[in-house]
Amino acid sequence: MQATLDLARESGYARLSMEAVAARAGVGKHTVYRRWPSKGLLFLDSLLSQNEPDLGYPDTGDVMADLRSQIHAAVDLLGGPPWGPLYRALLGEAQHDPTVAAGLNERFIRPQADRTVARLRTAREQGQLSSDFDLDLAMAVLSGPLYFQLLITQEPLTHDYVDRVLDALFAGMAPRP
Amino acid sequence: MQATLDLARESGYARLSMEAVAARAGVGKHTVYRRWPSKGLLFLDSLLSQNEPDLGYPDTGDVMADLRSQIHAAVDLLGGPPWGPLYRALLGEAQHDPTVAAGLNERFIRPQADRTVARLRTAREQGQLSSDFDLDLAMAVLSGPLYFQLLITQEPLTHDYVDRVLDALFAGMAPRP
Repeated sequence: MQATLDLARESGYARLSMEAVAARAGVGKHTVYRRWPSKGLLFLDSLLSQNEPDLGYPDTGDVMADLRSQIHAAVDLLGGPPWGPLYRALLGEAQHDPTVAAGLNERFIRPQADRTVARLRTAREQGQLSSDFDLDLAMAVLSGPLYFQLLITQEPLTHDYVDRVLDALFAGMAPRP
Repeated sequence: MQATLDLARESGYARLSMEAVAARAGVGKHTVYRRWPSKGLLFLDSLLSQNEPDLGYPDTGDVMADLRSQIHAAVDLLGGPPWGPLYRALLGEAQHDPTVAAGLNERFIRPQADRTVARLRTAREQGQLSSDFDLDLAMAVLSGPLYFQLLITQEPLTHDYVDRVLDALFAGMAPRP
């Protein structure tokens, strides 16, 4: 799996092949295919297992500060090299290969969503969030604007950007009474 | 370009090739390559020119209603077959091919962002939006959660989902005073 990441970093995901990974790892092609049925799944496994980032939430009692520090950590990890381009390539592959999308959701997105909801539920109980904020939307609302920047506009994902997004989400779009 | 879309719908973007498009269109391969340097750009052009959806905003004087009807139109177009899977494939390709990402932003995302900001600016002037809502974030905040659903969780993009997102964005996450 290290060979996969090394090759992807050197020449990009598009040029990655099972054959090249096998050659770099010094094993036969069939050994690779036995374990991973596709390039996408090999890449998913390589990314998730080499890189076990702690993207959990602190609980300092201040939900805004805790969200901010977690999102800064996520941006530091996924917003730039080396992981940013590889993560983007993985998300690109997930649009073509449903097994990659399913694996990514099961192993990364859903556990992350569960942690987000848990932290926000505590905050809601403590009166730090609106009592009718829909927790099922938490992940989409909080991380959607980050993915929009990462995948669509592909502009730099900075601390300043996510701070402004958090402020806007907390304040809401409606005029204050 | 019709041949490109027909083939992509029949067998998926991953299996699409310049050769197959040329054969289906009854022209030589070089004719295709002369006009489009890559499969991604051919696909982008085919999608954007065959399909000129009106994703503009009405202005009924009620910004919430206007946003809702525009987003419903976008979801109807991009949330399901036939365009949904093709648009997802295009966004997938944009993660691997920077020329596709640049073309998509220039020809679709940025004009759409400009229209969104224009409609929201009017609403802000009319007191229907918070006076300090950051218009530069409008596109990311409003459409980020939709792209999250379309590209990441890949769960169905429904009117109900976008209605709930709009309500959450308007109300904000912070507790009401």
